[in-house]
Amino acid sequence: MKIFIVNAGSSSLKYQLIDMADKSVIVKGLCERIGIGGKITLKKPDGSKYEAEIPMPDHTTAFKIVIDWMTNGETKVIDDLSEISAVGHRIVQGGAIFKESCLVTEDVIQKIEELGALAPLHNPAHVQGIRACIETLGDKVPQVVVFDTSFHSTMPDYAYIFPLPYEYYEKYAVRRYGAHGTSHRFITSRVINEFGVGTPSKIITCHLGNGSSITAVKDGKCIDTSMGLTPLDGFMMGTRCGAVDPSAITYIMEKENLTPQEMDTIMNKKSGFLGVSGVSSDNRDVEAAADAGNERAILARNILKYQVAKVVGSYIAALGGVDAIAFTGGLGENNPFIREYVCDQLAFLGVKYDKDKNEEYVHGKEGEISTADSSVKVYVLATDEEMVIAEDTQKIVEAL
Amino acid sequence: MKIFIVNAGSSSLKYQLIDMADKSVIVKGLCERIGIGGKITLKKPDGSKYEAEIPMPDHTTAFKIVIDWMTNGETKVIDDLSEISAVGHRIVQGGAIFKESCLVTEDVIQKIEELGALAPLHNPAHVQGIRACIETLGDKVPQVVVFDTSFHSTMPDYAYIFPLPYEYYEKYAVRRYGAHGTSHRFITSRVINEFGVGTPSKIITCHLGNGSSITAVKDGKCIDTSMGLTPLDGFMMGTRCGAVDPSAITYIMEKENLTPQEMDTIMNKKSGFLGVSGVSSDNRDVEAAADAGNERAILARNILKYQVAKVVGSYIAALGGVDAIAFTGGLGENNPFIREYVCDQLAFLGVKYDKDKNEEYVHGKEGEISTADSSVKVYVLATDEEMVIAEDTQKIVEAL
Repeated sequence: MKIFIVNAGSSSLKYQLIDMADKSVIVKGLCERIGIGGKITLKKPDGSKYEAEIPMPDHTTAFKIVIDWMTNGETKVIDDLSEISAVGHRIVQGGAIFKESCLVTEDVIQKIEELGALAPLHNPAHVQGIRACIETLGDKVPQVVVFDTSFHSTMPDYAYIFPLPYEYYEKYAVRRYGAHGTSHRFITSRVINEFGVGTPSKIITCHLGNGSSITAVKDGKCIDTSMGLTPLDGFMMGTRCGAVDPSAITYIMEKENLTPQEMDTIMNKKSGFLGVSGVSSDNRDVEAAADAGNERAILARNILKYQVAKVVGSYIAALGGVDAIAFTGGLGENNPFIREYVCDQLAFLGVKYDKDKNEEYVHGKEGEISTADSSVKVYVLATDEEMVIAEDTQKIVEAL
Repeated sequence: MKIFIVNAGSSSLKYQLIDMADKSVIVKGLCERIGIGGKITLKKPDGSKYEAEIPMPDHTTAFKIVIDWMTNGETKVIDDLSEISAVGHRIVQGGAIFKESCLVTEDVIQKIEELGALAPLHNPAHVQGIRACIETLGDKVPQVVVFDTSFHSTMPDYAYIFPLPYEYYEKYAVRRYGAHGTSHRFITSRVINEFGVGTPSKIITCHLGNGSSITAVKDGKCIDTSMGLTPLDGFMMGTRCGAVDPSAITYIMEKENLTPQEMDTIMNKKSGFLGVSGVSSDNRDVEAAADAGNERAILARNILKYQVAKVVGSYIAALGGVDAIAFTGGLGENNPFIREYVCDQLAFLGVKYDKDKNEEYVHGKEGEISTADSSVKVYVLATDEEMVIAEDTQKIVEAL
């Protein structure tokens, strides 16, 4: 069974074709500048890359171009689009409605559209992606939607309700939903099954990247996560501030005469590593500048590792202990300094790790970095959100 | 030496006269509705209470009435105002300038006034209180200012800088300052000295009340605290929301068409216990409603204890362990359920406590609630911010 994975943004369409027989990636790529131009990139597993600028007025056109590339010429990977057995879509916001992945129906599409109020940049684009697939592949090819929020749907109310007037929860569904759910679920499953931690267990998964979130998992179920109504909440990220004193927000808005949308943009696009360091939103650039002595880069580096340790600590208290901590994501998989700091701050708990392994485990090298006598298992693990989507899609389609 | 303690608000003046010979309170009381009416209350240690409505157009008038009551008639406690050796003032915001208590000079008054930008409701009122004292007692009576923020001035930059664009820190001094410093300092000192925890040590002080904050203290020095630019930050309080996803703030402002000031008022006055429970801002009312089965009151109760445990956990990670946890403030001293929950969540660390003592230690009964074999000392301690102000004042005045 070959499954096509789609992650549609407002002007982009990330795709991947996976052969479920051996879970190999047949092809992957990206369409960009949809509606304002058009560019397609395609990569094959042998490393060969193709790209071209082609007008893409809408997602359907982009999708047709991808199909055309996959079935013709140099970029061909399948003989016919009938080889695509199913499509799996990544959906950012499933609200309180979608507690698990499900088959696409008209009703499902409508609900995803309605949840656009909570994810105006993402959900409408996802719907465009789904409709483009239906138009191109026909309605006989089953489509499945996998939500970033589903894994967090098991949170208790005291973890997801903000202590604001309750009417905002009732009127606007303002609450914590979380994000990165497919990644946290994938890593949780690996820790429990592949690494034998099993259940009952207390696990903390740290997905650290340009966007970052940390999740507390009890017996395989999420009980808390750092992202909130949107992916802004939590702790410092590439360009996002995470949680700050809310009065600082209204104070700055007042001083600078900013609208809510302008302030939101500043908090989402101009804060985090970029805002503090003034150097870059990319942690590698910030680390390099810090190594060179840039004081604000050093400050940004220090804030990040300190805040990660604090969130991990808060989840240890929420879980009433911890059996395993896993780091994943671009930063979690590649920045040994953050992992070192978190482990050192938890040394009092009996956390012990192999310093050499911690430094070696970068660029895809992964596994356990804790020592045999550590009271807590510590892992560096590569995440694979597309594989989660593919597996969910397969399971649902096979059950039809 | 008799020291007069003043806590001036925008329309109020809280006062206390302390005899430093035996650290006894000679008299205490409150002037309210200054500028819009006027009411004085006076309490003597024998339990007798006096009150009257008297016009108070300004703080100087209020102050003169207090002096008059203290030196004349039924309410008399001293023969002459010359018995007042010094005055100690509580100041909410000392910014990055005042790292410790100091003698009042014109320059000091001016700086407190300038810091009014960060505490517009408090600092200008404090200055009025100071000027009223000078006018009434003359400039020969030394006055000392004690700042809510000073104890937190030892925080490292990575704990006090928000991951927002750095320019807001440079332009507007937007950063974490904390509050309740005199209380956290008093409790820290008691834990270290009176209860023999000593230094080096890792202590977490939880000041829980209508306003709440938690502080991480390493070797007697504050390294982090939950209140931020203003006393809104941190976790759920009586009417304050604490830290929430900042995008929830801009989202609600947009939906409800609110100005920054209106949103600030909602976050400060209509959130917290009140906002979630819909019952009351007073934790006792919320607990009673929760006991009676009110679901939103149960939710408010659960959020509070869960958030307190999480902040404590985050500070354990920040400190790299913990030797002692102390609870103080109206709620910290009187709500055994929060203490129980926090201790239970930390049982994995070896925290053990005496359940009977925990339940008995309310209404002023105080001391250690942890058992002899607990890995962490846990205390319930009554705070006394006025005594800290009096002691600082005495120390500074005696050194003149």
